[in-house]
Amino acid sequence: MTGNILGERFVIVTFGESHGKCVGVVIDGCPAGLPLSEIDIQNELDLRKPGVSLITTPRKEEDKVEILSGVFNGFTTGAPICMIIWNKDVDSKPYDLITKTPRPGREDYPAYVKYSGFNDYRGGGRFSGRVTASFVMAGAVAKKLLNYTLGLEIIAYTIEIGGIKAGKINLDEARRLRYTNEVRCPDLQVASQMRDKILEVQKIGDSVGGIIECVVNNVPIGLGEPIFSSLDSELSKALFSIPGVKGVEFGIGFNAARKLGSENNDPYKIVNGKIVTATNNAGGILGGISNGMPIVFRVAFKPTASIAKPQKTVNLETMEEIEITISGKHDPCIVPRAVPVVESVTSLVLADQALRSGFIPNVLTRKCNL
Amino acid sequence: MTGNILGERFVIVTFGESHGKCVGVVIDGCPAGLPLSEIDIQNELDLRKPGVSLITTPRKEEDKVEILSGVFNGFTTGAPICMIIWNKDVDSKPYDLITKTPRPGREDYPAYVKYSGFNDYRGGGRFSGRVTASFVMAGAVAKKLLNYTLGLEIIAYTIEIGGIKAGKINLDEARRLRYTNEVRCPDLQVASQMRDKILEVQKIGDSVGGIIECVVNNVPIGLGEPIFSSLDSELSKALFSIPGVKGVEFGIGFNAARKLGSENNDPYKIVNGKIVTATNNAGGILGGISNGMPIVFRVAFKPTASIAKPQKTVNLETMEEIEITISGKHDPCIVPRAVPVVESVTSLVLADQALRSGFIPNVLTRKCNL
Amino acid sequence: MTGNILGERFVIVTFGESHGKCVGVVIDGCPAGLPLSEIDIQNELDLRKPGVSLITTPRKEEDKVEILSGVFNGFTTGAPICMIIWNKDVDSKPYDLITKTPRPGREDYPAYVKYSGFNDYRGGGRFSGRVTASFVMAGAVAKKLLNYTLGLEIIAYTIEIGGIKAGKINLDEARRLRYTNEVRCPDLQVASQMRDKILEVQKIGDSVGGIIECVVNNVPIGLGEPIFSSLDSELSKALFSIPGVKGVEFGIGFNAARKLGSENNDPYKIVNGKIVTATNNAGGILGGISNGMPIVFRVAFKPTASIAKPQKTVNLETMEEIEITISGKHDPCIVPRAVPVVESVTSLVLADQALRSGFIPNVLTRKCNL
Amino acid sequence: MTGNILGERFVIVTFGESHGKCVGVVIDGCPAGLPLSEIDIQNELDLRKPGVSLITTPRKEEDKVEILSGVFNGFTTGAPICMIIWNKDVDSKPYDLITKTPRPGREDYPAYVKYSGFNDYRGGGRFSGRVTASFVMAGAVAKKLLNYTLGLEIIAYTIEIGGIKAGKINLDEARRLRYTNEVRCPDLQVASQMRDKILEVQKIGDSVGGIIECVVNNVPIGLGEPIFSSLDSELSKALFSIPGVKGVEFGIGFNAARKLGSENNDPYKIVNGKIVTATNNAGGILGGISNGMPIVFRVAFKPTASIAKPQKTVNLETMEEIEITISGKHDPCIVPRAVPVVESVTSLVLADQALRSGFIPNVLTRKCNL
Repeated sequence: MTGNILGERFVIVTFGESHGKCVGVVIDGCPAGLPLSEIDIQNELDLRKPGVSLITTPRKEEDKVEILSGVFNGFTTGAPICMIIWNKDVDSKPYDLITKTPRPGREDYPAYVKYSGFNDYRGGGRFSGRVTASFVMAGAVAKKLLNYTLGLEIIAYTIEIGGIKAGKINLDEARRLRYTNEVRCPDLQVASQMRDKILEVQKIGDSVGGIIECVVNNVPIGLGEPIFSSLDSELSKALFSIPGVKGVEFGIGFNAARKLGSENNDPYKIVNGKIVTATNNAGGILGGISNGMPIVFRVAFKPTASIAKPQKTVNLETMEEIEITISGKHDPCIVPRAVPVVESVTSLVLADQALRSGFIPNVLTRKCNL
Repeated sequence: MTGNILGERFVIVTFGESHGKCVGVVIDGCPAGLPLSEIDIQNELDLRKPGVSLITTPRKEEDKVEILSGVFNGFTTGAPICMIIWNKDVDSKPYDLITKTPRPGREDYPAYVKYSGFNDYRGGGRFSGRVTASFVMAGAVAKKLLNYTLGLEIIAYTIEIGGIKAGKINLDEARRLRYTNEVRCPDLQVASQMRDKILEVQKIGDSVGGIIECVVNNVPIGLGEPIFSSLDSELSKALFSIPGVKGVEFGIGFNAARKLGSENNDPYKIVNGKIVTATNNAGGILGGISNGMPIVFRVAFKPTASIAKPQKTVNLETMEEIEITISGKHDPCIVPRAVPVVESVTSLVLADQALRSGFIPNVLTRKCNL
Repeated sequence: MTGNILGERFVIVTFGESHGKCVGVVIDGCPAGLPLSEIDIQNELDLRKPGVSLITTPRKEEDKVEILSGVFNGFTTGAPICMIIWNKDVDSKPYDLITKTPRPGREDYPAYVKYSGFNDYRGGGRFSGRVTASFVMAGAVAKKLLNYTLGLEIIAYTIEIGGIKAGKINLDEARRLRYTNEVRCPDLQVASQMRDKILEVQKIGDSVGGIIECVVNNVPIGLGEPIFSSLDSELSKALFSIPGVKGVEFGIGFNAARKLGSENNDPYKIVNGKIVTATNNAGGILGGISNGMPIVFRVAFKPTASIAKPQKTVNLETMEEIEITISGKHDPCIVPRAVPVVESVTSLVLADQALRSGFIPNVLTRKCNL
Repeated sequence: MTGNILGERFVIVTFGESHGKCVGVVIDGCPAGLPLSEIDIQNELDLRKPGVSLITTPRKEEDKVEILSGVFNGFTTGAPICMIIWNKDVDSKPYDLITKTPRPGREDYPAYVKYSGFNDYRGGGRFSGRVTASFVMAGAVAKKLLNYTLGLEIIAYTIEIGGIKAGKINLDEARRLRYTNEVRCPDLQVASQMRDKILEVQKIGDSVGGIIECVVNNVPIGLGEPIFSSLDSELSKALFSIPGVKGVEFGIGFNAARKLGSENNDPYKIVNGKIVTATNNAGGILGGISNGMPIVFRVAFKPTASIAKPQKTVNLETMEEIEITISGKHDPCIVPRAVPVVESVTSLVLADQALRSGFIPNVLTRKCNL
């Protein structure tokens, strides 16, 4: 299968470029019978919309979704769902230069070689963060499906930006507070410091990275297919598809490498007649299968590569070392707008796994009794 | 596609259980014309063989590979290659208990629920580290293919065990020294400390984790398919399929989250008429595509879950909290034996990507001139 | 993978319903560097356009294609190509009844059961022949790709309608004459009889079926992947996806069952220094692989199921046997409009196979010399 | 995905060559909880065993199956099931010639070009009918699964050999009588004529083809995924993977092309409170979905290409036209031994579809109640 397609049973196909006509997605495999309207999608899409605050790119896009197929009388039909947003605030002039002088930290150079210069480089084309809008459109459907059928809850939030770390965050705070501030951090005091940090680096034409944590609640036991389609395998694959991601860890992650087995293993106990683990170092996944505890993972984002400071590169035609200064519209930190993207990508993988493992049926309710 | 299958063009299908008759793998899609014999496979397999030192499991297995198909007159034919090793040193008695009293940190409980108790639990069945022997058999073919056609070199080594960290390692040391010691660490002084650490925790019935680094050299520019099949996406998916992996990061990984864009971006320069980057913070991957610099990533392994110390669990039948002590044969640290597994899994993904991106042809040499 | 997706390397994803907003398709995997514009698509699309003659459905659709992504500066970019036509002449009233009284010969009843009544039944929804417009849009790109890179020629034509059979047709006649008449038959005298037959059954509210033959010229030797992805396997799979197809045969097809081996085998000979076969009973395919001779196959279409005559069915609510008369807009014979659909579907499969077998590269020309 | 792999949820991977060590298959995706032993496989395998009568190849093979994985305590575990038969009666000498002088009607020439001469040509290698033993091993599991869960019955039988046609056959006769005679035809009088015909052509060093019909009983309504994975699409794809197949038709097939819509449509009626169709011209499939009537299709086989009579071919080295006479062990008619192969392939597709459409669950019975 080709690379713009994700999933086996809840499949998404993305299309569209940063400065093309539109960004869109087709979902194939969404069960019939899910109540769905454009509002469900729009709500999620608005959370990653650009141009809404000082700390995001100034590009102005309404990002108003249109559902083109697959929904009839307010319900999904089982047919492919195509959704589109149209690009409007496009200024491609700043990008003519990059075909000859690749920007450090961006895909310009390898993409130019790979596609022999045929790729649409304007605004980063298919490599633009704008493409993640298609993840969010599809993710909104997956999220609703998971919630409607299994009561699953997927909650991502910023825990670190530019070295500034949030304190310990409980699930209830995360649920209520993550979208109340521009940096999407439930630790409100730290959120304010993070925002200052972003504005500070922006002022000097620089950028900053950060870390997002994601928790999935109400996970049934047994989600995850064997070996190569294990829960962590499929989640990490999808997470590394988000531009800028450089690391993924589950449970206590890299710190597990420093623990003894006796410290790291999560002992079982019984609480209210239910088997749970006393700790959750595993992050809810054992042998690639969900164990009923919350799934917990963290995703590291590098600082935005497109910065206003002068940078060293080469001219591909003259083969001379030169210095460039990039213009165009960019986020000084992509982490805040990546929070709904992480939630979306997680929803996509879990919806696919829930269909594969039989936790969600092919048709949601039987209207007929034949 | 189902979960025991990996890849699109260089496809592997694994089968076999820890205490079943055998562990095997079928490769479909290996180009015709690769010189191949059992020695190529055996050399790699011997590097992960159990029972060879004090710090590995005492299970004695010869792990002698048999190629059952797909090779004719010393060359691959383009047909599926089936390879098998037979299980010999099997003692399944210690595992009867675990069906009722799941071991903390192992898949026992979620697998029992997922498969309604039908799964082969003996020695961990399909969840055993023994299954990675099939990764190594297939990986040996992929590694040879990559080296034969592209001159690619894949080198993994231990950089941390139980909190003990190796010093900076250059590629030449890694190449020469990683397999000269039992812990697979090219920093020989630290290697000795790591070995002591493993013996120490083994003595107290405990286990310890660690980190493996992997470097891929001579990578062509342009490897990696777009978005969901990006190089990092596919590598991480395969790496998280190795039992015990809890984190994966590329380039400077999680540390990128703490850098400014101006620090993190790798500036281009020209060395001997070739475009390279001055640093390699990106780990050789930009926008999911190789940029010609070495691919670098790290993989965090948790401590072995199966330890001799008493642990808290529950009896699934009586629903009582109890304490268990696990017997059976286990590695006190899986990191050393995971080094060739990481190399193998990396080879599998890169061979698949090289075929998908057209860097390796479907047939290696034309004998006929029709 | 889900059912609205076809192919491995040249992948298409179709969406849209007969009476929804649009019918569309996404191609993922088309190589970068193919010159492409909307005219290329429109030319093919016009050949299956409804409402253009007395013998087709009176539904009036302009079927004007819009390319939404994947093309830049007149060339494909390697990114997904999304194409859409908008539905305009839609009257869904006649279809309210069919939810309760399924039409004989149509999918109404099994689709209703399968999707619990959530499927969009208007105009047949996803089961409408209108969906084949998406095959043609994508097929136009595949056809151009095959011609541009390999000089392949794909020629389908009607050879039988309502029992009236064309005489022997040579390739040159087929090439020149098939689209000069409404029934798409290169035997012009018989074409006129076929047209009369269609008008005759239409007058009595009935419909008629027929057979299409397809020839592929300039096929390289070695196209076709082993066993389950053999050329005939993949072609037949795609052909049976066209609504109304009930039979597919290659070469002399069913007649081969009545031949002796010595009659059926095509002897090899040398013509102009090139190895060819004296006959082509095999239809250009041996062991699932092209042998360099023209690929030849035939596809049988049933008569249109939606007819104006009264028919017996049951009322699903009252479970009574009743008689219905169908309204709505329908073709009295789908064969003529299916001719470009057969060519399209053939092009899709061959483009996929040519990419899989390495006959077409991932990027068509190298503009850069890095 | 590569060509030796079939299916999405019930996936099979075949391996092994005619004159290699073995022929085998791996099933991935078979639900846990199916009672299974080697006897289930052996019974089916014995029906296609060579060397058992005058009208089959004299090659003597015991074809004794070994299950290597995926079965534990008499039940499938949900893990991959690997099955193997070992090759014993192998004489590869007669095949050295074919590398230079391709046999008419066989894949020798295109395979040689495709694989640059690296393919294992001995006994036809991967293109040998012997490979269908792997279809039967896997098909036996699929057939048992379908019968165990849905009560499905799959019955194929010979209806024509060398132009000799069986009379009308009812399902009960087919069920009872098809395996009582060597040609697998339930019309016993005609069966005897067919046998004579085969012996007659064999005597003159020639071969003969035929037609197999297959009926599937107790099919639930709604089996079949949309468009490209429709029931007829997937069945035809798998059927054309059987060596020698040149045509496939469903219901009345090619004859539907000669009917009026009013004749061809199957009217609905109610029998014993159940909706059925009065006729079954559609062969149980409407819009690619099962409608609850028996699935009926026919498969045309060409005469065996490997015949003893002298044939014209070319010498690939000298490029001269020559005459060859083929030795080796061959069936004078492959139809009788193909009957269990058609049943197997049908079972594989239906098991896959039943899992995809949710008619069969991932685990067959819940032993635990957690």
